[in-house]
Amino acid sequence: MTATESVPRQNLTAAELHEIDRYWRAANYLSVGQIYLLDNPLLREPLAPGHIKPRLLGHWGTTPGLTFVYAHLNHQVRRRDTELMWIVGPGHGGPAAVATAWLDGVYSEVYPDVGRDAAGMRRLFRQFSFPGGVPSHAAPETPGSIHEGGELGYALAHAFGAAFDNPDLVVAAVVGDGEAETGALSGSWQSVRFLNPVRDGAVLPILHLNGYKIAGPTVPARIPEEDLLAQLRGHGYAPHVVAGDDPDTVHRSMAGALASCLERIDTIRFRARHSGSSVENVRWPMIVLRTPKGWTGPRTVDGQPVENTWRSHQVPLAAPRENPEHLRQLEEWLRGYRPGELFDDDGAPRPGTTAVVPRPERRISGSPHANGGLLLRDLLLPDLRDHAVQVTRPGVEKAEATRVLGGFLCDVVAANPRNFRIMGPDETRSNRLDAVFEATDRAWTTGRLPVDRQLSPDGRVMEVLNEQLCQGWLEGYLLTGRHGLFNSYEAFIHIVDSMFNQHAKWLKVSRDLPWRRPVASLNYLLSSHVWRQDHNGFSHQDPGFIDHVVNKKPEIVRVYLPPDSNTLLSTVDHCLRSRNYVNVVVAGKQPQFNYLPMDAAVAHCARGAGLWEWAGSEDGAAPDVVLACAGDVPTLETLAAADLLRRHLPELRVRVVNVVDLMRLSNEGEHPHAMTDREYDTLFTRDRPVIFAFHGYPWLIHRLTYRRAGHPNLHVRGYKEEGTTTTPFDMVMLNDLDRFHLVMDVIDRVPGLGVRAAGLRQHMRDERLRCRAYTREYGEDAPDIRDWVWEH
Amino acid sequence: MTATESVPRQNLTAAELHEIDRYWRAANYLSVGQIYLLDNPLLREPLAPGHIKPRLLGHWGTTPGLTFVYAHLNHQVRRRDTELMWIVGPGHGGPAAVATAWLDGVYSEVYPDVGRDAAGMRRLFRQFSFPGGVPSHAAPETPGSIHEGGELGYALAHAFGAAFDNPDLVVAAVVGDGEAETGALSGSWQSVRFLNPVRDGAVLPILHLNGYKIAGPTVPARIPEEDLLAQLRGHGYAPHVVAGDDPDTVHRSMAGALASCLERIDTIRFRARHSGSSVENVRWPMIVLRTPKGWTGPRTVDGQPVENTWRSHQVPLAAPRENPEHLRQLEEWLRGYRPGELFDDDGAPRPGTTAVVPRPERRISGSPHANGGLLLRDLLLPDLRDHAVQVTRPGVEKAEATRVLGGFLCDVVAANPRNFRIMGPDETRSNRLDAVFEATDRAWTTGRLPVDRQLSPDGRVMEVLNEQLCQGWLEGYLLTGRHGLFNSYEAFIHIVDSMFNQHAKWLKVSRDLPWRRPVASLNYLLSSHVWRQDHNGFSHQDPGFIDHVVNKKPEIVRVYLPPDSNTLLSTVDHCLRSRNYVNVVVAGKQPQFNYLPMDAAVAHCARGAGLWEWAGSEDGAAPDVVLACAGDVPTLETLAAADLLRRHLPELRVRVVNVVDLMRLSNEGEHPHAMTDREYDTLFTRDRPVIFAFHGYPWLIHRLTYRRAGHPNLHVRGYKEEGTTTTPFDMVMLNDLDRFHLVMDVIDRVPGLGVRAAGLRQHMRDERLRCRAYTREYGEDAPDIRDWVWEH
Ligand SMILES: Cc1ncc(C[n+]2csc(CCOP(=O)(O)OP(=O)(O)O)c2C)c(N)n1
Ligand SMILES: Cc1ncc(C[n+]2csc(CCOP(=O)(O)OP(=O)(O)O)c2C)c(N)n1
Ligand SMILES: [Mg+2]
Ligand SMILES: [Mg+2]
Repeated sequence: MTATESVPRQNLTAAELHEIDRYWRAANYLSVGQIYLLDNPLLREPLAPGHIKPRLLGHWGTTPGLTFVYAHLNHQVRRRDTELMWIVGPGHGGPAAVATAWLDGVYSEVYPDVGRDAAGMRRLFRQFSFPGGVPSHAAPETPGSIHEGGELGYALAHAFGAAFDNPDLVVAAVVGDGEAETGALSGSWQSVRFLNPVRDGAVLPILHLNGYKIAGPTVPARIPEEDLLAQLRGHGYAPHVVAGDDPDTVHRSMAGALASCLERIDTIRFRARHSGSSVENVRWPMIVLRTPKGWTGPRTVDGQPVENTWRSHQVPLAAPRENPEHLRQLEEWLRGYRPGELFDDDGAPRPGTTAVVPRPERRISGSPHANGGLLLRDLLLPDLRDHAVQVTRPGVEKAEATRVLGGFLCDVVAANPRNFRIMGPDETRSNRLDAVFEATDRAWTTGRLPVDRQLSPDGRVMEVLNEQLCQGWLEGYLLTGRHGLFNSYEAFIHIVDSMFNQHAKWLKVSRDLPWRRPVASLNYLLSSHVWRQDHNGFSHQDPGFIDHVVNKKPEIVRVYLPPDSNTLLSTVDHCLRSRNYVNVVVAGKQPQFNYLPMDAAVAHCARGAGLWEWAGSEDGAAPDVVLACAGDVPTLETLAAADLLRRHLPELRVRVVNVVDLMRLSNEGEHPHAMTDREYDTLFTRDRPVIFAFHGYPWLIHRLTYRRAGHPNLHVRGYKEEGTTTTPFDMVMLNDLDRFHLVMDVIDRVPGLGVRAAGLRQHMRDERLRCRAYTREYGEDAPDIRDWVWEH
Repeated sequence: MTATESVPRQNLTAAELHEIDRYWRAANYLSVGQIYLLDNPLLREPLAPGHIKPRLLGHWGTTPGLTFVYAHLNHQVRRRDTELMWIVGPGHGGPAAVATAWLDGVYSEVYPDVGRDAAGMRRLFRQFSFPGGVPSHAAPETPGSIHEGGELGYALAHAFGAAFDNPDLVVAAVVGDGEAETGALSGSWQSVRFLNPVRDGAVLPILHLNGYKIAGPTVPARIPEEDLLAQLRGHGYAPHVVAGDDPDTVHRSMAGALASCLERIDTIRFRARHSGSSVENVRWPMIVLRTPKGWTGPRTVDGQPVENTWRSHQVPLAAPRENPEHLRQLEEWLRGYRPGELFDDDGAPRPGTTAVVPRPERRISGSPHANGGLLLRDLLLPDLRDHAVQVTRPGVEKAEATRVLGGFLCDVVAANPRNFRIMGPDETRSNRLDAVFEATDRAWTTGRLPVDRQLSPDGRVMEVLNEQLCQGWLEGYLLTGRHGLFNSYEAFIHIVDSMFNQHAKWLKVSRDLPWRRPVASLNYLLSSHVWRQDHNGFSHQDPGFIDHVVNKKPEIVRVYLPPDSNTLLSTVDHCLRSRNYVNVVVAGKQPQFNYLPMDAAVAHCARGAGLWEWAGSEDGAAPDVVLACAGDVPTLETLAAADLLRRHLPELRVRVVNVVDLMRLSNEGEHPHAMTDREYDTLFTRDRPVIFAFHGYPWLIHRLTYRRAGHPNLHVRGYKEEGTTTTPFDMVMLNDLDRFHLVMDVIDRVPGLGVRAAGLRQHMRDERLRCRAYTREYGEDAPDIRDWVWEH
């Protein structure tokens, strides 16, 4: 490919052009109205300061580009009856999304109080960015949107996620030229290398070069155009350039370009599906749209150029209430769209204004894919018991928990071949979920070699070394009504902290919108966790994603730390059935003890936190000390500590409590899963020392429990940011989470024990030294540590 | 540009080729030795199981590519005397970085116990990935490295950061082909659009297509080569392809390509600096290196191909201790490098082995830039008093704190024209730091238009809509001995959570390495914060970066919440003088009250937390209640609450405490800034209710203070994840942080007040209703809220 894909001769009739332009003008009018007007929506009176909102909040600059794209999408959808949804990358152009949904009639169906009449239009304008009204972005409140676009960068990732396994869908994704500078967006172009034209829908990127971001030009708009096109071609696209500032010319060119893109998509599909064409290295069409930022808005304000500069980004006329010249310019601007021609005397769009809107089922703003819960079907899940490990005695046999889970997931993949995917940054095998490759491959639609294994265009495991893309794809996939799992190293999941934030916020708001139907939860499986970074060391040690997650609304977030294989199975089974949550599951991939047979595991997970009678030595009386634990490695150390205590201090009554569902701990009333105080007191006591061995940063446990009666007696050990490449036991010792230190903690905290157990305490210190010295000499853990089993 | 930059006829003599190859073989030998050997480093005896490490931890696959690159860089540096440092993107190839530093002699200079002799080589091997030894990555412990490369994606960003303002430096950056899939790396190519050949050094990217990541092929290696080259050209580079698996051929080709790249860099520099050539759209050279993963390692193991497949990623021979065939293969592999030829009888490299190493001052692993503290010079800082706002009475006049800071930063930029930069994702003006543009522009070396403002190749403000790039550039800049500030919206700084983690970890480890000299702190200025997202709403509301930061080592992290302009000045002044920290400063950009004249502000910041006597009504006796606050908006609401209390409950003794330095609160002993318990008790009392109005998530305060005596009496209000586009006062009401709610909290908590003040409590509820209703009707806050000032 050496030149721009040439746009076929335009075939827009004058009438069609007029229709599109009229819709565009209407949408622009409604957008400006939203940003500025409190009243006088149809300009039936001369505009007066009292009609203007006191606070002008919103973004004009991006809006005319979005309405332009939408008007043209409408035209094509109506002509071709394409199943199409759109993603608004610059979501701050919220007015465009709202205006078009209102014009299509969808808005008033969803929000009947905002009708398509003068009163409705007044409400439409007033509510925008107004207290008690609607947000300024393409938020969950906006029909037709699965993408808020507040935090820029995820437009293409969401679009591809929506397109996967939706073979008839076209997802048009507007990408801002500022947005295109982000890492997330830059890494998203390669998504096309994972798209299979046989089973997947198409994504039509529309890179909107309006030239500017907030305060300056953008890189893609200012580099030589041949450089930009070379990049896009290199990513696997055939770009069509549409450029200009004269509406008629750009209308014609856009209509031609869009038509030929959709044509091309049909051809690609047909060839791949019916003529056996290769699905590899398909060159997908896309559009580069170069139009002025703030197009059709004020050219100059206060003597400064505004249209086609960054100055149009937010509110081009800053003070029409105070400044009569601004007011005049605003009125001129609004009247320039000729509202009388667009809306009838009742304020409803005249038929000609919406002539371009497709039949009701095809309206873009009404796409069911944008309210994925409507399309959601339950997963077919295998019987857990078929995958359970046999546990004859606790703490003796070992299994790799994620490997066991892999078998279960293999069945899930097999039973749900069209609506379940596993995402991961090249770690599915490293995280020991290999068994899934018995049922499927990795998705891959570019070159393959004979040496390759588990790679095919039909693979349902999506591996790309890009956590943002994994997350974005999965979000798009879930929000359009499907299911999935994201497996990642625990430390690097922080790469998507901010994306998780946005998704959790989306879910929080969606829950309160009755018309948004529940979607499948976003499930994280974090493995290769902090305690077992044998190959990598300090940079790979960070259990803090949980801390990050629990800052979000309790209604949305769930955190699980299953201690063994069967509890992991039960947990994931539960997560895959849940809706509207973010579930974080942390589980090890290294051989670890099995503790609970399947039935007991299910019961333990249902409890979320429970007594392990077999491990303690309470003997019916109240315990002297509680050893609590959460996470596989802390559970091991806790049991080993309990073992030491039973041997060395047989008279001490020890209770062992294991926590799977972290939110059970949180202060009464703060999380739907929180235990009552009575329950907590029964389990942890109000007055006995509790030595808590925790997988993550210790203070998280304090933050959850500070209101519990027993909190002053709670002593938590966890990761305190000490680590390197060393042995597993050295890692726990570095952080004072080891069995010996836990015994020392017991001695220090149980009243009366200190002096009496001085010898044992000293012995424990010596044991730590011995174990450390052993690692320094032999490079591995001492045999008694490696070979320890639960013997009681 | 239509074809690959053609490589000039190779000019490597047979002797040179031999030298390079010999160095390469030595580095490979030393790398394999590190991964496998406990003993018998020179293979003087036949290899026996006892010579093998019990745990084999490391990554072979990437290593021979890295050593290959390094050998060739050596050759060029020696020939051309270039000032060059390297960045190892695939930092998991730690053995390569360590091996080459040892060969160069640098390693033994830094770590004299690891000498260049047999004993030293034994130690070199043994220590690698060994308990008590060195990490498996290019970590801070590794001389010559500023880039750990554990979390992949930041190689180019770091390289550009290092190159800025280092006009004579060439930074060679090896990028893994898996790494190239990450968002961070994908977004980093555009860095070259910000590089000014007159004042900046050069970055020479070496994209290493070894074809695989952990478990499968990589996108850049498998797409058609013309696509890849089109991308790279489109990004502004002239790629030179070097490909093959026959060492001699690839040596010749690599030498030729490197020579012509360095030649080209010299030409670009010369033209820009001396011939007045344009500095815009310069096409910088780079290398695409396509060689087998695990090159020179075992071809097949257990019947499976290994060299040139993903199977070589970690340890190709898994069990040489147990499996005699593996042991044999390992010995054959090692002997294949002909160690006897490489090292003398003492184990030192023979002269011919290191013939390619440059003169001592030019050794790449010894680059002073990689230990930036060596080159660090203090900033020249203006007098704070020149920028202070005048404060005649507290809480009456307003200023935009970040605007005031802008004036100060303008002077910093002007006084430090070669070693201070400001980074930000297009928000410097939005965050109201515009005054800096009086001293400088935004850096920009691509197309400009007449309409542009504040844009030039010499700009010292680095704006790109890419938080990862801002962070990566700044890290690279700081670690090579310069200073800077990163300004960002508060919510979106989460995009770099994981990058912050890695930098904090780097600093933590560096502190304990006496040879690593302190570097300037990484300073974040977070503005456009959660409470004032007037234009944007919920997606832009997240104060959780602080929570994330305080999980890292207390020695490294500092968090400041200056309540007004003068305290912000004093805080930033302090941060710019500090070393080896990460400082997070959260400050508003909206007009807010000034409280403290400059001297008082400096004193208050030095205290970190202090009584505001003028605001309270203690009257010499112990207070009945403490109103504490941290952050500009909470401070305002707290003062307004104090005002209400003074009016309505004049007999109540109220203390007002303001906290600037959040870490002052943390439990005694947990952070270097933590107050003693005595101090804390004096300030906050042990027994009076404390109503704490906090900028961020309320539980953070509990997590910091749960051990304080007064903790049970502490009630915190903060952001509880409620928000949308609404008025400032509605935002605080949504989160119960408003003045009226604070008064209600006081009434509920002060013993004896409840019943007596029932009327006032009810009035406060009514006030909330009134204020909310006002916003719903008028779209702005009630006048008494907007116009409130401190009147006492
Ligand atoms: C990740 C991120 N960083 C910063 C911002 C702040 N921001 C809001 S809009 C904008 C400029 C967007 O430019 P562009 O993508 O070109 O959209 P346009 O408005 O020009 O269509 C920026 C930087 C953001 N929303 N997201
Ligand atoms: C952000 C991130 N995600 C995942 C990983 C886990 N990981 C370690 S090495 C690796 C593959 C790297 O491949 P490449 O960059 O090609 O390096 P090379 O082939 O030279 O080893 C991955 C995915 C990581 N280190 N960083
Ligand atoms: Mg733009
Ligand atoms: Mg690779």
